[in-house]
Amino acid sequence: MTTEAPRPAPKDPFDLPDVSGLTVGVLGGTGDQGRGLAYRLAKAGQRVIIGSRSAERAGAAAAELGSGVEGAANEDCARRSDIVIVAVPWDGHAKTLEGLRDALEGKLVVDCVNPLGFDKKGAYALKPEEGSAAEQAAALLPGSRVTAAFHHLSAVLLQDPGVAEIATDVMVLGESRADTDLVQALANRIPGMRGVFAGRLRNAHQVESLVANLISVNRRYKAHAGVRLTDI
Amino acid sequence: MTTEAPRPAPKDPFDLPDVSGLTVGVLGGTGDQGRGLAYRLAKAGQRVIIGSRSAERAGAAAAELGSGVEGAANEDCARRSDIVIVAVPWDGHAKTLEGLRDALEGKLVVDCVNPLGFDKKGAYALKPEEGSAAEQAAALLPGSRVTAAFHHLSAVLLQDPGVAEIATDVMVLGESRADTDLVQALANRIPGMRGVFAGRLRNAHQVESLVANLISVNRRYKAHAGVRLTDI
Repeated sequence: MTTEAPRPAPKDPFDLPDVSGLTVGVLGGTGDQGRGLAYRLAKAGQRVIIGSRSAERAGAAAAELGSGVEGAANEDCARRSDIVIVAVPWDGHAKTLEGLRDALEGKLVVDCVNPLGFDKKGAYALKPEEGSAAEQAAALLPGSRVTAAFHHLSAVLLQDPGVAEIATDVMVLGESRADTDLVQALANRIPGMRGVFAGRLRNAHQVESLVANLISVNRRYKAHAGVRLTDI
Repeated sequence: MTTEAPRPAPKDPFDLPDVSGLTVGVLGGTGDQGRGLAYRLAKAGQRVIIGSRSAERAGAAAAELGSGVEGAANEDCARRSDIVIVAVPWDGHAKTLEGLRDALEGKLVVDCVNPLGFDKKGAYALKPEEGSAAEQAAALLPGSRVTAAFHHLSAVLLQDPGVAEIATDVMVLGESRADTDLVQALANRIPGMRGVFAGRLRNAHQVESLVANLISVNRRYKAHAGVRLTDI
């Protein structure tokens, strides 16, 4: 007979923390994707601050969104938030994050940027030097906890007040389970959405660039396609 | 008043050709993925020939599968088939296709290979020089019609006779609508499956490498995850 302690049962992957008391910042919150996410999270009862380079523009967009959304300059938005969603255009991604390194220290950062190029044949994946937008964020923000999520959402559906539920899974990537659990819980706040852990940051590129395929799907089927994972 | 003819209505994207009379070859048909696909297609009434480097091994695997599946050496399998699914390991992908260039001339080739690496942290995407396994196939087979599909299927579920339906979408990529329509129709033959057009071959890499994420999902949730596209 051995004296080994019994192994603990694996943690239920859907047993997630309560994030209802956390403040969520959205950098690039005046863009379509950022505005849509801010709208859905605030409507679900989350405290949301949208950030923009201009505090004034952020304030105006926040007023339009309602549901208690506040607007602030990006740096102020970052400092006042617990979780910071990065929804800036890919073009300004590195520069924006470099300028916010101090403000984002210790924060849980959720990158949802899709590096894409466009030409006559449609959209195609761009490959950032660091591997993905999320890995670029992690490289630029050594003091932050960087995750990636919310890539495959239709900005049209997010912003449409006539759409009650966003029926889609949100693939969440990151290096620490505590962090990805928080992001999954945040996704779960939005009716219809389900946060699903989908790997480490080194596997973010294909998740980010799958949006190029969804654009082809949307064009062929006149749809706003999302992704569901089966069997879980 | 102009004399322009009215524009034809766009073709219904789910109006697909009848492929029930076509013969499907499966290169690498003795591997788990190939065997599973051969089993499902044959069970659905498709004529299927599995290929292997050894005709003898192919014959033995075919006999095990039943449902009229035949076995043949890869070259013979390719020549006798209308549609040829490439389900060989990534390691042997280029070499196998180079050797079959003549036999695959004029054929509709469906690449379902996922170039992945594995280490202690799990699976990660490999980036073929040509961009993707499918683009490598297209480069090596200038006389074939190359498409990509069937990347996200669980070989376990495919091969399990107790599983009646494979509830998943099959993302189909290619350059010609006539070809991708045929592959979608082939996917639709398998109960539960739906073939969905998802872009050109230049956007195949992220579809192939998303399997690394599904492996993470399967590990976390003890599942055999597949992908569904919503809103279509």
